[in-house]
Amino acid sequence: MEPLGWLDYPPELSDAEEQYLLSNLKDWSIAHGLAVRPAPSFIQPSQDPSGVLASTAPVTLFPSLFPRSCFEEGLAIQKAYNELYSAIARDEKWLQSIVEELIDIDDFVAKLWQTHLAVRKQGGYVQDISLGLFRSDYMVHKDPAQSDPTPGLKQVEFNTIASSFGGLSSQVSALHKYLLAIDAYPSSTASLIKAGSLRQSLSASLLAEGLATAHKAYGNSKTSRPLCVLFIVQDAERNVFDQRHLEYALLEGNGVRTFRLPFGETMSHTKLDADQTLVYTPPSSPSSSFEVTTVYFRAGYAPDDYPNEEDWAARLHLEKSKAIKCPSILTQLAGCKKVQQVLATPHSPHLQRFLPDSEVAARVLATFAPIYPLDDSEAGKEARKLATDPTSASRYVLKPQREGGGNNIYRKAIPPFLQKLPETHWPAYILMEMIEPPPLSNAILRNGELQRGGVICELGVYGVCLWRDGSSADAKGEVMENFEAGYLLRTKGDQSEEGGVAAGFGAVDSCCLVDE
Amino acid sequence: MEPLGWLDYPPELSDAEEQYLLSNLKDWSIAHGLAVRPAPSFIQPSQDPSGVLASTAPVTLFPSLFPRSCFEEGLAIQKAYNELYSAIARDEKWLQSIVEELIDIDDFVAKLWQTHLAVRKQGGYVQDISLGLFRSDYMVHKDPAQSDPTPGLKQVEFNTIASSFGGLSSQVSALHKYLLAIDAYPSSTASLIKAGSLRQSLSASLLAEGLATAHKAYGNSKTSRPLCVLFIVQDAERNVFDQRHLEYALLEGNGVRTFRLPFGETMSHTKLDADQTLVYTPPSSPSSSFEVTTVYFRAGYAPDDYPNEEDWAARLHLEKSKAIKCPSILTQLAGCKKVQQVLATPHSPHLQRFLPDSEVAARVLATFAPIYPLDDSEAGKEARKLATDPTSASRYVLKPQREGGGNNIYRKAIPPFLQKLPETHWPAYILMEMIEPPPLSNAILRNGELQRGGVICELGVYGVCLWRDGSSADAKGEVMENFEAGYLLRTKGDQSEEGGVAAGFGAVDSCCLVDE
Repeated sequence: MEPLGWLDYPPELSDAEEQYLLSNLKDWSIAHGLAVRPAPSFIQPSQDPSGVLASTAPVTLFPSLFPRSCFEEGLAIQKAYNELYSAIARDEKWLQSIVEELIDIDDFVAKLWQTHLAVRKQGGYVQDISLGLFRSDYMVHKDPAQSDPTPGLKQVEFNTIASSFGGLSSQVSALHKYLLAIDAYPSSTASLIKAGSLRQSLSASLLAEGLATAHKAYGNSKTSRPLCVLFIVQDAERNVFDQRHLEYALLEGNGVRTFRLPFGETMSHTKLDADQTLVYTPPSSPSSSFEVTTVYFRAGYAPDDYPNEEDWAARLHLEKSKAIKCPSILTQLAGCKKVQQVLATPHSPHLQRFLPDSEVAARVLATFAPIYPLDDSEAGKEARKLATDPTSASRYVLKPQREGGGNNIYRKAIPPFLQKLPETHWPAYILMEMIEPPPLSNAILRNGELQRGGVICELGVYGVCLWRDGSSADAKGEVMENFEAGYLLRTKGDQSEEGGVAAGFGAVDSCCLVDE
Repeated sequence: MEPLGWLDYPPELSDAEEQYLLSNLKDWSIAHGLAVRPAPSFIQPSQDPSGVLASTAPVTLFPSLFPRSCFEEGLAIQKAYNELYSAIARDEKWLQSIVEELIDIDDFVAKLWQTHLAVRKQGGYVQDISLGLFRSDYMVHKDPAQSDPTPGLKQVEFNTIASSFGGLSSQVSALHKYLLAIDAYPSSTASLIKAGSLRQSLSASLLAEGLATAHKAYGNSKTSRPLCVLFIVQDAERNVFDQRHLEYALLEGNGVRTFRLPFGETMSHTKLDADQTLVYTPPSSPSSSFEVTTVYFRAGYAPDDYPNEEDWAARLHLEKSKAIKCPSILTQLAGCKKVQQVLATPHSPHLQRFLPDSEVAARVLATFAPIYPLDDSEAGKEARKLATDPTSASRYVLKPQREGGGNNIYRKAIPPFLQKLPETHWPAYILMEMIEPPPLSNAILRNGELQRGGVICELGVYGVCLWRDGSSADAKGEVMENFEAGYLLRTKGDQSEEGGVAAGFGAVDSCCLVDE
């Protein structure tokens, strides 16, 4: 049998093959908590008022093909990324210069910054240790200008808050290994799907270890209260098992207690002692109280989480506390798109500022897709040329500077769009080189429906970084812990240029590494 | 705070306590495969045609109180029970005498026996090794005739085929330990629910070890085919995760491959080689074949599994094969109620026949609830006296001899019932001493509904026994492996004397041991 190539992977399955693979996948996933609460479009909440139902999480049937060199490079440079973003988060002056450009156009960034300033005004930060559970997201890029291009990684975004799917990612890579072990993949895939090609992601245990590291760094309670880590969560979280796997790993692997607190209930169940110790009183046990070592935000990352002014008060309350924040407001701001943009602007001096080792900086730089401002700078002039020429424009996307995305203009549509736009408005946009992922296919099981076809994969590499701020604005602080923490492969249909199947987050996937 | 006694356990929960306990229970159960496919009365199959939904398995919120001495005695005598029932299964002549009394009144027993005879006619058994994964079920009995009775275990039944819930039992005992670890049980329970009181059931891994022992004892393939264990299952199994946990433990802990084969498809996917080697061809891979070392029946235990004559042919086909059966037909027959009855008849000589060590036999005997025939024997005469006197009758239940149960007559209703029944019909019934469990309460989560109140608990103790038949009818054979394999606590509402809430199997539970 001819070995499969990239273009005919995964193979078509016979009915019996598909039945075998799917029945084993569906049972394994539930038995191992690779699950989500069902979407309301699938099962109406009124049918399950007490919420005991779950379904297989959206998953790919096959591990997607991924260039081995790209995978290994992504994991290898995560420590440099951790160092970069923790350095940015420690550099308040620099962050301020970024934020000031956004304050007028982005209310959310403005509110975050005001909350930071309020902490400064109300006595300042009493905790100089911060934790980042980061995730750097990439796509594989093959430069279409080259005839036989070497695949490289290009960064899509860098997440500094609520980096999700670390819990499920460990499970989906174990699922694909299990399916291989029980011969659920047809023999035509044997040269691709094999033990040496599948990579177990250890994200669940490593991210838990990150939280445990912060918990330990916090030290003992001064009031002899029991200690805990507080997960700040959204109210009705369908992706709850992803988070729960971290909680279980924290308890079993590290002996650390956790509590889940809906963000909106923060003020009802926590209070600050005189020395800003954060004290949590479980509603189930009003006479007891725990000292919070670490606040882990799985909510609070988007404007929707702050419907009322009280929610901003809650964020301020947590930020002022002695608990280690994962992340702090400054760390969250370090993750805004504008930061990625200024780092990735050609000839930018910023990367060197935070990564003085030029070799390390060069490896990180190689993962940036160039991003140009459309202003009067040198890079801006270059960008105007690229954007107005239909040939060169076809390799770019035009994006509004605003946080939040949407309304992107793609490729050949850019020159006519700019022609109609008064030049004074051009600086509201940035020009970004399109990432050109190789064509790939897979099959996704989602809400019980099987979807097949072209897909786009995003590799997310998790990183744990624990650091201590410098004592003055000039001091650089100190990185206390820095490690790569597993990976996520997230796969969605390639139907639209905006990326993704109609709704939702695509599917969790794992890497089947291929030597190019 | 006053420590809780048996009668006020479990305590009432405040709304917040209940919410905390339930939300943690519901998430943990799905994350750890303590799950079932939803009942059709809960979610219509048309809503989930591809079968991706699952729900929390019916579980108790609290571990039920259980006398420590009874628990330890149940586990301690399991090896004797394994020895007893494997000896019965090896004693074909004795079994024949039992079966002959049933053949006219029980079609199912008759068919099993005919299938056994057909094997004998068609060349006989080619595999002299048998595996039993047994479960001995008990209730706690407190003799109401005594003023301060010592609790003892009384056997409800002994299962020799398809003993279920070993997979979920490991998970529910881990769940209750988790709930204790996160303080989900109110502090009023602290003197009862504590680390030393909760017992982790290792049933999943130990039953898998039992299957692995048989797999290994089978030896190598003569045809260099890969080996496997075949799970013979029912077609639409809601309790599939219970079975899957054994499969996963077999693969991960023992490196043993398993396949699931619906009983009705046996003849389509298996064949016998000339030397009766059982060969399985997975429908998903028609060009491959596996040699079956062990046939594990999770179907075929009840008449409903044999709707057509072809199903009996399939059982014969498997029974004739070289694969080790778990269980063989003779082992299955050893589990019929009549066997329990003749062993438990006062002054019965049978127990001594199979357990020559009188000390061991006495411990086993102490767990029998006396069972009397209503015939002309000595025991029968005693029984007629007990059954017709309203005072003594109130401690008994009258049951039809027929396999299958139902139509039991309880306590004071026995004398008037017998009065109306012609004496020639009396031998169709047996008189059994009622087991009098202490009053207990618990709360059960089932299909999303919370039920509270009085419950009855059944302790099941699993046993693994692998043996070799004797070479002639006289030879005793040889026990190759014999171990206790964890426990199950199964709890149901006490609403009816027949036992159990309206439908289904109650809930899985774990033991909170109490010193009396």
